[in-house]
Amino acid sequence: MNTNRQWLLSKRPHGMVGEENFEYVETPIPEPAEGEVLVRNLFLSFDPTQRGWMEDRESYLPPVQLGEPMRAGSIGQVTQTNHPDYQVGDMVQTTGGWQDFVTVAPGQGIMGLNKIPPQIPPDMMLSVLGVTGLTAYFGLLDLGEPKAGETVLVSGAAGATGSVAGQIARIKGCRVVGIAGGPEKCAWLTEQAKFDAVIDYKNENVDEAIARTCPDKVDVFFDNVGGGILEAALNHINMRARVVLCGGISAYNATEPVPGPVNLMNLVIMRARMEGFIVIDYMHKAEQAITDLLGWIQSGELIYQVDVQEGFENIPATLQRLFTGQNLGKQLLKIADPS
Amino acid sequence: MNTNRQWLLSKRPHGMVGEENFEYVETPIPEPAEGEVLVRNLFLSFDPTQRGWMEDRESYLPPVQLGEPMRAGSIGQVTQTNHPDYQVGDMVQTTGGWQDFVTVAPGQGIMGLNKIPPQIPPDMMLSVLGVTGLTAYFGLLDLGEPKAGETVLVSGAAGATGSVAGQIARIKGCRVVGIAGGPEKCAWLTEQAKFDAVIDYKNENVDEAIARTCPDKVDVFFDNVGGGILEAALNHINMRARVVLCGGISAYNATEPVPGPVNLMNLVIMRARMEGFIVIDYMHKAEQAITDLLGWIQSGELIYQVDVQEGFENIPATLQRLFTGQNLGKQLLKIADPS
Repeated sequence: MNTNRQWLLSKRPHGMVGEENFEYVETPIPEPAEGEVLVRNLFLSFDPTQRGWMEDRESYLPPVQLGEPMRAGSIGQVTQTNHPDYQVGDMVQTTGGWQDFVTVAPGQGIMGLNKIPPQIPPDMMLSVLGVTGLTAYFGLLDLGEPKAGETVLVSGAAGATGSVAGQIARIKGCRVVGIAGGPEKCAWLTEQAKFDAVIDYKNENVDEAIARTCPDKVDVFFDNVGGGILEAALNHINMRARVVLCGGISAYNATEPVPGPVNLMNLVIMRARMEGFIVIDYMHKAEQAITDLLGWIQSGELIYQVDVQEGFENIPATLQRLFTGQNLGKQLLKIADPS
Repeated sequence: MNTNRQWLLSKRPHGMVGEENFEYVETPIPEPAEGEVLVRNLFLSFDPTQRGWMEDRESYLPPVQLGEPMRAGSIGQVTQTNHPDYQVGDMVQTTGGWQDFVTVAPGQGIMGLNKIPPQIPPDMMLSVLGVTGLTAYFGLLDLGEPKAGETVLVSGAAGATGSVAGQIARIKGCRVVGIAGGPEKCAWLTEQAKFDAVIDYKNENVDEAIARTCPDKVDVFFDNVGGGILEAALNHINMRARVVLCGGISAYNATEPVPGPVNLMNLVIMRARMEGFIVIDYMHKAEQAITDLLGWIQSGELIYQVDVQEGFENIPATLQRLFTGQNLGKQLLKIADPS
């Protein structure tokens, strides 16, 4: 291989993102500058928040510019090094983007350039021990403050973040109810991830189902979806409930502004809180989180699921899977095997 | 006077509340039971939240039942006593309702039966030192957590609660911007209440005006209004902003559900919090608040304004004034002079 395949952001999306928003190009493999390494991307991470990075608006990260490779977290292998701390063959996590090769120095980019312990498989590192797992950990524990015996409701519950958030709540002694789409995801949640109850939003009235499955009301709502699901949940919050706003995937591909819930005043009546967060702010505490998560995985209390697509040509279509609900668990794409 | 005039809730409102929702009756003056006193109401308090008490739905207080006198805070005078701690002539604060006389025992009702210090005028006790002032105090300080140098935006800023919240923020060293309707209210806010800037929502584009008057963005938004005002404010929140949900008067008389803000995801991007509260939960800390508020009044740092209507027959119309924005400051109605 002597070219760097790339998918560039070529057109900002209006509505559902698709292949038409990207341009495939082949460019020379870049040379690492002094202090940099050249990384070959092996696995790409797909996250709903990436849809927001494509919009030309102020947000928690600058927008991806037109003509730039699409931004994405990745795991790769060092193939050339101008930095004494990194050797050829090292497995690293970085923000590699939609391309075969990236040059990067430690501390650069969102994720920096972090070596992965050899015993951790890349798919675990990019999912339950990566951004999505940490998002679940800090969002649930830091904002949700779940207490044993409380009821925790999770939307997007079969997703990479929701499934981990719900299981952590269960580990902390809470009753956990998940909202997901379709019987396959729902079965996985109750049978494998050991949620106490599950709501299939595609086949049930969510409002009625929350009332039925949460007889003591909802103390913590961990929301990845927004829209009508958020509104339904707000109808059933308990006194001093915490609504953790993790995401709002239901509106990410909307062409018109999506109205918020009609019942925000329930936050007043129930003295409840709704709070947003970005996992980037917690990266200085990642080590403790990873230790906890890994411990729960090893004890069998926490399971995770990855959906690994393959083929560089399938990258844009793989992003779309997040928004059509096709993915079961963390969405990844494998570009190449480690050497 | 040997009858007890009353306005009973006769029909639950759909849309704007009006006289048609109440029935005027005259009944015998009740006799206080053992441990009770008979109070003659002198001043009635009007609060936007009373509109919610008229709805037949679960809330922070049970709904007023059809055929009952409308619930309202009041200040009155003891005219007959069967309780050793209360003497005829004592001025008391209670939940007297829309009637001349009420029998009540200490600890009963929302407000109990609290003697008013002789040096405090009733209109001060029912406004800046009453529920609205305490709402401002605890909502701003406990939920808003304003820090010197921060920007605090207040909606319903010329109202009984908003005007006090804004002034406390100014006393705490914040830059304070108020949103109110019409030039008279706006002039009062800047000239009398010493707000740093003001936005006339009836004559300005609120979104643009917030951007102009809050160049460092909004750290605390104290919201009494909801709807489009809340949405506009959410466009301009700062990192780790606190949105204090005090009320949502814009929707209280709506006949259809009013959609929430389209931009709740700004809470995520800005790691911000939106939280509701009910002042009743803070009543055990009222003494400290009243001490602080009274101190600021006496030092001239805090002013307040009351709008005192008169005439028992005008009670229903006076409630409506809150929702048409006619009141300037705390809305009261005087039924009688103390004897």
